[in-house]
Amino acid sequence: MRQRYHEQLDDLSEMLVKMAEATTAAIQRANWALLHGDRESVELVHDTAVAISAQFRRIENVAFLLLARQQPVASDLRLIVVGQHAAADLDRMGQLASHIAKIAQRHHPDCLVQIEGCAPIREMATVAEQIAAKATEAIRVRDAVLAAELERDDDRMDALHRRLWATLLSGWQDGTESAIDAALLGRFYERYADHAVNAARQMVFLVTGRA
Amino acid sequence: MRQRYHEQLDDLSEMLVKMAEATTAAIQRANWALLHGDRESVELVHDTAVAISAQFRRIENVAFLLLARQQPVASDLRLIVVGQHAAADLDRMGQLASHIAKIAQRHHPDCLVQIEGCAPIREMATVAEQIAAKATEAIRVRDAVLAAELERDDDRMDALHRRLWATLLSGWQDGTESAIDAALLGRFYERYADHAVNAARQMVFLVTGRA
Repeated sequence: MRQRYHEQLDDLSEMLVKMAEATTAAIQRANWALLHGDRESVELVHDTAVAISAQFRRIENVAFLLLARQQPVASDLRLIVVGQHAAADLDRMGQLASHIAKIAQRHHPDCLVQIEGCAPIREMATVAEQIAAKATEAIRVRDAVLAAELERDDDRMDALHRRLWATLLSGWQDGTESAIDAALLGRFYERYADHAVNAARQMVFLVTGRA
Repeated sequence: MRQRYHEQLDDLSEMLVKMAEATTAAIQRANWALLHGDRESVELVHDTAVAISAQFRRIENVAFLLLARQQPVASDLRLIVVGQHAAADLDRMGQLASHIAKIAQRHHPDCLVQIEGCAPIREMATVAEQIAAKATEAIRVRDAVLAAELERDDDRMDALHRRLWATLLSGWQDGTESAIDAALLGRFYERYADHAVNAARQMVFLVTGRA
């Protein structure tokens, strides 16, 4: 019984890592769809986001059963509670990647982000991939240093977001529809990074006991 | 000890209702700021959102302590788990109301939503208030019928969102900046409604044991 309990806790950790890996794959594919106007990638991102949500439901179920049957305490309880929060963030990241890919699809076969005003978005795409990979690693090794680094990466993302807004508000040259989509992309990347940092912060809480 | 436990569970329910009431107040004030260009309301929404987030942290703490010390089972455990999910949705609703108010502030003393193209946004604001009030009631009385009604209200919100997008993409007349803010407002109201429906759906799960 007790051995099974520890296996289930390990499963939960493993599921979180797999979910984080999937959010990294999702943003890489969404970026590819956006930067190269690749339509096939849009479908792939959607499928990945659906799989991530299914994984989220599985984690919720495992967590609930562990709470109901094993009455965990101390660090086990922390893992279960924190794991659910982190899973909610990762789920949202999958959906945001899917939103990004959908905007790429709306412009197909044109490539929105190749226009001059979208330079900050191209950088946001790169930073989002870096943040996703680092958040995955932070979740795998539960590393407070990596989580702290993510806060700085998130500052870079916020600075890029501000630069995009400055461009949007100071004489945007590429029409209303592009401006709206650029603004939405900016928001989606910024939210994606926020959720990644949140997920990592939860892991710091898990290791150090501090929020 | 056992009496204290039941008091804490009741406190948790009560805190959720208070939080839901605050999200209703927040969207009412955000709408006022937006529809009347009222600057003072913007500050009030911000303060309300901060108070809602503080309430969220308190609920998380109470829930964690209940899990750690009381090892709840069955319907008590469900309340604690579901309560945390609903609280996360309510927290997000407060933040979205604050985002809406900030857009109002950006246009002060002009009033963005009085322009013709923003007619769907004015309706979305009304629907958001109705949804907020209904979600609060669903959380208070844990009523599956109300929660089901909310799904229909959410369909109305989605239809308005589509109407707004049609307007934005078919010859918007009021400049790029207004178009961006109208698109963002549409998204914020739609997300606000989604979270309200989610919170209510959790309560259905609590009563019926079905998701």
